[in-house]
Amino acid sequence: MKQVNAEVIGIGTELLLGQIVNSNAQWLSSQLADLGVNVLYHQVVGDNEQRMTDVFALAESRSDLIIVTGGLGPTEDDATKQVVANLLNKSLYVHEDTMKEIENYYIQNGLSMSPNNKKQAELIEGSTLLPNAAGMAPGVAIHENETTWVLLPGVPSEMKSIMNEGGFQFIKRQVGVDATIHSKMLRFIGIGESQLEHDLQDLISGQTNPTIAPLAGNGEVSIRLTSKAATLDEAKDMLRETEAEIERRVGQYLYGSDDDTLEAKVMELLKEKGYSISSAESLTGGRFIDQLITIPGASEITKGSVVCYDTEVKSGLLEVPQLILETQGVVSSSCAETLAVNVADKLRSSIGISFTGVAGPSEQEGQPVGKVFIGIYVDGELPYAKEFHFNGDREGIRNRAVKKGFQLLYQMLTQ
Amino acid sequence: MKQVNAEVIGIGTELLLGQIVNSNAQWLSSQLADLGVNVLYHQVVGDNEQRMTDVFALAESRSDLIIVTGGLGPTEDDATKQVVANLLNKSLYVHEDTMKEIENYYIQNGLSMSPNNKKQAELIEGSTLLPNAAGMAPGVAIHENETTWVLLPGVPSEMKSIMNEGGFQFIKRQVGVDATIHSKMLRFIGIGESQLEHDLQDLISGQTNPTIAPLAGNGEVSIRLTSKAATLDEAKDMLRETEAEIERRVGQYLYGSDDDTLEAKVMELLKEKGYSISSAESLTGGRFIDQLITIPGASEITKGSVVCYDTEVKSGLLEVPQLILETQGVVSSSCAETLAVNVADKLRSSIGISFTGVAGPSEQEGQPVGKVFIGIYVDGELPYAKEFHFNGDREGIRNRAVKKGFQLLYQMLTQ
Repeated sequence: MKQVNAEVIGIGTELLLGQIVNSNAQWLSSQLADLGVNVLYHQVVGDNEQRMTDVFALAESRSDLIIVTGGLGPTEDDATKQVVANLLNKSLYVHEDTMKEIENYYIQNGLSMSPNNKKQAELIEGSTLLPNAAGMAPGVAIHENETTWVLLPGVPSEMKSIMNEGGFQFIKRQVGVDATIHSKMLRFIGIGESQLEHDLQDLISGQTNPTIAPLAGNGEVSIRLTSKAATLDEAKDMLRETEAEIERRVGQYLYGSDDDTLEAKVMELLKEKGYSISSAESLTGGRFIDQLITIPGASEITKGSVVCYDTEVKSGLLEVPQLILETQGVVSSSCAETLAVNVADKLRSSIGISFTGVAGPSEQEGQPVGKVFIGIYVDGELPYAKEFHFNGDREGIRNRAVKKGFQLLYQMLTQ
Repeated sequence: MKQVNAEVIGIGTELLLGQIVNSNAQWLSSQLADLGVNVLYHQVVGDNEQRMTDVFALAESRSDLIIVTGGLGPTEDDATKQVVANLLNKSLYVHEDTMKEIENYYIQNGLSMSPNNKKQAELIEGSTLLPNAAGMAPGVAIHENETTWVLLPGVPSEMKSIMNEGGFQFIKRQVGVDATIHSKMLRFIGIGESQLEHDLQDLISGQTNPTIAPLAGNGEVSIRLTSKAATLDEAKDMLRETEAEIERRVGQYLYGSDDDTLEAKVMELLKEKGYSISSAESLTGGRFIDQLITIPGASEITKGSVVCYDTEVKSGLLEVPQLILETQGVVSSSCAETLAVNVADKLRSSIGISFTGVAGPSEQEGQPVGKVFIGIYVDGELPYAKEFHFNGDREGIRNRAVKKGFQLLYQMLTQ
């Protein structure tokens, strides 16, 4: 199979000043991945002809396909077409039909055209015009010296419109893409990134198609499997075998794939088993129940929650005995267990989960920042609580506590 | 003024596959702009040592300051420190204190450490450790051959924490930034972006230093003022005059500046007036109280909340009379008022706020998606409720309801 190596270049001072995020590079990269094109580099440079020339020349030296976004506008600064033309020893000319369209636009809207607008109608000698249904400046595509260039406006809606209407077609034809890339995410809970990688080390380093990439973030670990083949069916088949081997080794930590989330999985399991759940939340302040309620259909399994941030709410509405508060304190296993039982009782749900601990910034009742108890009570069984020590700032600790709560529920529900 | 030229390099296949957007480059660029550093390039490259070496060498040849995000994790792929060390002819060593912290983390959480975790404790010979309060891998800073390198994890929360705690300080010291850009955000509530822009049109188009940029998002409107001068004092002086003119015109909508948030402002006003607050949340599911509790010091003014997602919780724990539920329904002014009064009563706080409505995806009791009542009760006064119709999907409607709740409280507290 032919390998096509690509890079995506963004032009614009607003990117370098951090005023906007380079969402164009993300969108183009994800679309090119689906075509089987390897995007190996992104670059961003400002509206400066010398630096643009350097960046374009570097790209030409290493890439089969170069997509440039930005610098096609009417202002003095907009130099993308001129710089590429210079690099390819070509000249620019005014495309008459485009020029007429621009003139018509100005007439129809009662605006006066400035001489600069002519720039938007310029094409590189020997290039192909890519129509822009969403705006004024057309895209420009040219294949020269074994490199394919696609020049696009920086406005995302125009960029996408041009690519979808003719840009991807041009690329497929010119670079002869004939492969399909298929990706699948496997989602794990209860295993660290390094442990997962350790258990799969030989697979990860031994395989190139499919590739196996561990990813961490948001308190979870995932693996991205990516295969490349002539057809989608072949690509999927190639994944299946690797996936089975991964499941054989670390399947006990696997909870889902692709767009699955732990929260939705927990909700699904609660529904399956006919449970309803309520939470008593101190440091997490409602974040656990909020994440459940984010999922449509939560009303089938969620009653609600008592956010017992103040001790008075723990002892009042949730009736944690003074004896526990005085001898064990609010950050204790006993308090967590009682909260879990009592919130389930008060809100008439079959499961109660509780969170109590120290989110910081300062310690509380002599307990260190990051110390958290999570209590779980299920329908007539004995309640239990687990102790954790989370790192991070106030928000990090609260997020980790909530994620851990979902993890404990998942384990309980799948035992 | 000394010119400092910088570039930001992102490492990671997930960027090149378009799975995530390079928000790190945006954040760093905007922060560096505020320091008066010129960011001239962004680059992104995958976890490939040869390509990383080429990209880093190019950066070294043209930039005074290079910030790299990603590639500091524990896996085989994570090669940023090794590649930079090779380029600088330095070796890596294990930083013992960091190693101990990592080991402790694993012990405290009952996890087993894999040999890979050692990588996260490695530093480049002669480098400075930048502490990571939000995660495991510290940042690494080194100044060598007239170039300053700052190596950061790819996880945005960790990257930001490291930069704010010591990274920017290191940069200021090393590269001796001496031009100052000063920015100030003015934050508004209760006025739309187009109205604000209309009221300030002549200022916005007439001024270049300071610049005046209206921004909208998250249910609010802001104005970013930016001035550039030799010293911070001069830059601040330049802002003051423009700010005064803006206040003169639209000051009645101004609630704060810079990092002020409406939520924190409401909390401050509650403290000032000696109020405490509880919420009764149906469709918002705890998100209102969660946003208050996000702010350190919330315990002074927040008792807690009852998340009454299920009608049974509204009628049971919060004692909304059956008569209201049967004749008016849960999505009604009467229900909202009763919830606000009763949650304040149950949780013994001086203010109660309630949210009841239809978040979607489907209508409820014949009420359309987006219809929301917010009820407010203050200490012995008559409760009241307001009706809203929010656009958007489930998440959008829930977020708008919460934001509107804070806006109503702000208006009530500043009347």
